[in-house]
Amino acid sequence: MTDEQIRSLAGSVLTTIRAKHPLILSLTNSVVQPITANMLLAVEASPVMLSDAGEAAELLRLCGNGLLVNVGTLSRTQEEVMRAAARTAHELGTPWVLDPVAVGLLSYRTAFCAELLALKPTLIRGNASEIMALAGLDAAGRGTDSTVGSESAVEAARDLARRSGAAVLVTGETDYATDGETVVAIQGGHPLMTRVTGVGCAMGALCAACVACAETPLAGAVAASFILGEAGARAAERAPHPGSFAAALLDELDRL
Amino acid sequence: MTDEQIRSLAGSVLTTIRAKHPLILSLTNSVVQPITANMLLAVEASPVMLSDAGEAAELLRLCGNGLLVNVGTLSRTQEEVMRAAARTAHELGTPWVLDPVAVGLLSYRTAFCAELLALKPTLIRGNASEIMALAGLDAAGRGTDSTVGSESAVEAARDLARRSGAAVLVTGETDYATDGETVVAIQGGHPLMTRVTGVGCAMGALCAACVACAETPLAGAVAASFILGEAGARAAERAPHPGSFAAALLDELDRL
Amino acid sequence: MTDEQIRSLAGSVLTTIRAKHPLILSLTNSVVQPITANMLLAVEASPVMLSDAGEAAELLRLCGNGLLVNVGTLSRTQEEVMRAAARTAHELGTPWVLDPVAVGLLSYRTAFCAELLALKPTLIRGNASEIMALAGLDAAGRGTDSTVGSESAVEAARDLARRSGAAVLVTGETDYATDGETVVAIQGGHPLMTRVTGVGCAMGALCAACVACAETPLAGAVAASFILGEAGARAAERAPHPGSFAAALLDELDRL
Repeated sequence: MTDEQIRSLAGSVLTTIRAKHPLILSLTNSVVQPITANMLLAVEASPVMLSDAGEAAELLRLCGNGLLVNVGTLSRTQEEVMRAAARTAHELGTPWVLDPVAVGLLSYRTAFCAELLALKPTLIRGNASEIMALAGLDAAGRGTDSTVGSESAVEAARDLARRSGAAVLVTGETDYATDGETVVAIQGGHPLMTRVTGVGCAMGALCAACVACAETPLAGAVAASFILGEAGARAAERAPHPGSFAAALLDELDRL
Repeated sequence: MTDEQIRSLAGSVLTTIRAKHPLILSLTNSVVQPITANMLLAVEASPVMLSDAGEAAELLRLCGNGLLVNVGTLSRTQEEVMRAAARTAHELGTPWVLDPVAVGLLSYRTAFCAELLALKPTLIRGNASEIMALAGLDAAGRGTDSTVGSESAVEAARDLARRSGAAVLVTGETDYATDGETVVAIQGGHPLMTRVTGVGCAMGALCAACVACAETPLAGAVAASFILGEAGARAAERAPHPGSFAAALLDELDRL
Repeated sequence: MTDEQIRSLAGSVLTTIRAKHPLILSLTNSVVQPITANMLLAVEASPVMLSDAGEAAELLRLCGNGLLVNVGTLSRTQEEVMRAAARTAHELGTPWVLDPVAVGLLSYRTAFCAELLALKPTLIRGNASEIMALAGLDAAGRGTDSTVGSESAVEAARDLARRSGAAVLVTGETDYATDGETVVAIQGGHPLMTRVTGVGCAMGALCAACVACAETPLAGAVAASFILGEAGARAAERAPHPGSFAAALLDELDRL
């Protein structure tokens, strides 16, 4: 896809989000809940977060348009909520996004992410280390940061997409989205986006909103990557430090 | 009450909060804890949040001036903390506010809110769908948003106030506060307040601070509604996008 | 130490943090997780937060450079994670910071903090009430605020340092750091720092990053106190209200 095609696709997905207000159940780590909800609100999606397995399944049946599962602060209690939600989304055909934070580094979440793959996520979003780990390759992560560039994980992403049936979005300096066949490179963003906690995790929720409003999971991934990158680049122009950048990023998402 | 009387009442309650620094135990959903604590600090109330049932009861006995129970991310664990705190507040006569987020939509929290009503909240704050659901009427909520205007719930609010003994605050484009007899309409606010996660939930904590410092629960509800609406309207004048609006709202609460 | 020596020490520690990006596992209360992670990112440390005991121990073994344990919203579940992490840090010799929020006021956390002392924290950070309570003195706390000035706790801090083997940092209008022998007074900061939730708690994580990059725990405590105080004073000059001050504080930490 050309840059102009990517921009046009993203604009169309964003317009649909602003018209349909997709309700996105975000089961995410405890650190990033506020910025995740605020990022969804900035694009006029409707965020919901829950902590009970029964409620998560019930909400998805009643009115859920998309689901995010982010394992950043996985616990025995949250594991049950996530499993119930992913199963329900799978049954209903509701699109759902897996964000396998630090998979491959810590053994508990690595096993749980493997289990979740069987519930057929619609999209998997991760940095290069995470995507390579999930694809079964050895990759050295360090905490939640990737130690390799996103371009190193393009082949792993393609393999993972083919085997899992999910679209895969590898984020980094350049983002790469693939459905196993096509690979789309999306430029944009700004290094300050890694200096505010939760921008990457909130992107998982934005992915869920985009996938819920796009024609294909790949198109949703491309749109989410472009929308966030564009807002990030604009925000950095007027807010060159991380505290004010966080507010400017939400402002720019609202203005897009 | 006239607009001038509402303004004067709110000013007097705010002055008392700034003098007495009421300690408000906020048992609230995991998404909105930072903005809830920051809203209390902006009016110079003293926020405390806890996750253990024994500690919640102990704190209320030692130094609690008010309590908020918000069921937005209810869990089996948090349910126990909330029950212990509400029971203790009821025994001690400490004012407490119930924010029945999405009651009527999800069955687990609906049953729990019904149980909490027996512990006699001092004030119930909700949107129209929530107040109608709690009053036993059918109302279509969607996620955490109301699908009907606040004016539709005035009669339900009055009924709920009479039967529960609580004052009731229905929030929406216009807020309505009632003790079952008097109904006060409070204008103000700005649509951006619904574009920042937790403004409504944090208002529940502000209600608890106001009720702790007002002569009647109804007066506390009116004051909280006016204070937040006034700060929101002022903040929107200089911060027309949600990221910077969130900071401006706290600034304006501090400046009131 | 003279003010000039303190400034020079802090500059050197900050330079090391920006070069080494120490990975700090922050097990902290649920209210302050975003600002804690953002404060670490603002000085270019690498924040991680986890909710599972096995994962916490595993991460420390793999790549942890420091640990914060903050008991502000202690629960039976979190207690296990904290115990596992503190034990692992103790075994590995990884520096760890204890922030005993409201110790002495609430009995559950008071007993748990006493237990944690046996695991030899490297640094203990608290307000005057907390340090006096931990030193075995009676001190009237109220919620999470101290009711006495930091200078009242200098002797208690010294005793606590001698008996526990930890450096102790008492925070207040003036901060005092001690290793049981030397006492260093650090001026700076601004009252607005108490009007934003989590600044004090996030300072515990900053302490862990500084201790991980300083020659002694005392030097780390002095550096953390100076860095945050300097950023706070600068932020208050251009952001005199708490909402915008929170963003300005992170901006100034980035600019130091």
